[in-house]
Amino acid sequence: MRVVRTIAQMREALEYMRQGGHGPVGFVPTMGYLHEGHASLLRAAGEKSGTVVMSIFVNPLQFGPNEDFASYPRDEQRDLALAEREGADIVFIPSVEEMYPQPIRTGVSVSSLTTQLCGASRPGHFDGVTTVVSKLFNIVQPDYAFFGLKDAQQVAVLRRMVADLNMNVEIIACPIVREEDGLALSSRNVYLSAEERRQALVLSRSLREVRQALEDGKVRTVNEARELLVSVIAESPLAVIDYAEILTFPDLESLEGGSKLSAAGGEVIMALAVKFGRTRLIDNNVFIPKEAHALV
Amino acid sequence: MRVVRTIAQMREALEYMRQGGHGPVGFVPTMGYLHEGHASLLRAAGEKSGTVVMSIFVNPLQFGPNEDFASYPRDEQRDLALAEREGADIVFIPSVEEMYPQPIRTGVSVSSLTTQLCGASRPGHFDGVTTVVSKLFNIVQPDYAFFGLKDAQQVAVLRRMVADLNMNVEIIACPIVREEDGLALSSRNVYLSAEERRQALVLSRSLREVRQALEDGKVRTVNEARELLVSVIAESPLAVIDYAEILTFPDLESLEGGSKLSAAGGEVIMALAVKFGRTRLIDNNVFIPKEAHALV
Repeated sequence: MRVVRTIAQMREALEYMRQGGHGPVGFVPTMGYLHEGHASLLRAAGEKSGTVVMSIFVNPLQFGPNEDFASYPRDEQRDLALAEREGADIVFIPSVEEMYPQPIRTGVSVSSLTTQLCGASRPGHFDGVTTVVSKLFNIVQPDYAFFGLKDAQQVAVLRRMVADLNMNVEIIACPIVREEDGLALSSRNVYLSAEERRQALVLSRSLREVRQALEDGKVRTVNEARELLVSVIAESPLAVIDYAEILTFPDLESLEGGSKLSAAGGEVIMALAVKFGRTRLIDNNVFIPKEAHALV
Repeated sequence: MRVVRTIAQMREALEYMRQGGHGPVGFVPTMGYLHEGHASLLRAAGEKSGTVVMSIFVNPLQFGPNEDFASYPRDEQRDLALAEREGADIVFIPSVEEMYPQPIRTGVSVSSLTTQLCGASRPGHFDGVTTVVSKLFNIVQPDYAFFGLKDAQQVAVLRRMVADLNMNVEIIACPIVREEDGLALSSRNVYLSAEERRQALVLSRSLREVRQALEDGKVRTVNEARELLVSVIAESPLAVIDYAEILTFPDLESLEGGSKLSAAGGEVIMALAVKFGRTRLIDNNVFIPKEAHALV
């Protein structure tokens, strides 16, 4: 495994791999502090690609002024051990100065998919994501890029960017990886106190309960599903809901509150952002609503 | 020479050229209605590249609602003959539907270089340019891309975009090509009446006169140069000045009016946009101001 810290070294390492005929390049962009979710992305990349590139870069552009850029957890040694164990061929760890040697004046932005959910709570966040991912794609020139579905809106936004700009890369979305008890893995989980950690289980539990209620026909409309989602989360006294929404996926369009979920005619996303103390966690479930069994 | 009309065919044609080991790809993006300026770009591309790709696409995104998108001159047969004669290997002529199969939601934009000169007169124009050029670069994946310096601001904006987003392409700026009498070549020159065509010579003449006055030490400060520029243009009764500016190049920053041009400490641009009837023409001169001879 090669560790490179400059764009020039990165291009050189890739050229070397390409000349060796190592097949397609799979790319896993991360902000580091790696966990089993990232490991699953590396394994998916390994299955589809001859060369696996991981980047570790905490991108200041995608953090708001009052967000946790400075305190975002970092542990390079542990990250490199995980990357090596999971088969990365090249790890790209640029400094902020390497990525932004002068004030960046060019922005890549996706409209209308970025105004709701995390885009509403974190203005500018997705512009930071699409801009840095554009840069990374231009540096790494991957055939495939792997992203976790925990950031489902990010996946939707990046797919749209790739299609709109004819980028020569396929975005591959990988399933959310969870702890045994259901908590979605996140580098930010380390911020949680023991009690917050316990109560944070309500995110995955609320999603499961709504899915079950839909299956059982106890809940049918968008409004009923959203109300159940909110009421389950409200059982945790520490939970402060940022958003709890049900939208079409991947277009993230609103659904008529009174209509049945199955009327969406395709995939929908139940998406949550909930704060526990100063820590904001997200979770979601993407599925195709079916008519309840009782009606079949 | 191959003529391709779809993105899939374009990628296929390039793959074929690459596998043949034809060397670097040089790219000349145009809006068609080709003239000797475009021919000079094709020749420059031929000198540096093994494969020369030209695109012809009148991009609706870079035209304002009251601009000449619908009436922009088109002549595919003549364009293809010129491209063939000047050594293009592949000509890419996509339809608007091929480039924008769905409403585009992703934009690439460069701030601060796009608020002055043509950016001020044509709001949204450069966003349309950077977005379509990003798309074309992703489709063609050129090693070099050739642009004429008549659109000097476009060159500055695209260079910044390429640097900021780490695009793997070198922007090569080629000199303005002029008629014998000095008029800069432009596809829009066909719009001019005989009398407008005659008076339009004032653009190149005003630039030459200011350069000469600077050489002779008759004009020294930015304000003096700008005043001379404007007064020469005013000699043509049909000329309506859109802008006549002197800025640093390529950063397009303002210069202190009372200071000498040579104080800019690098390249400056004298840039003009002038209307003759309904036709808006641009011209410019980029140079490094020297202390006038009298002072050496």
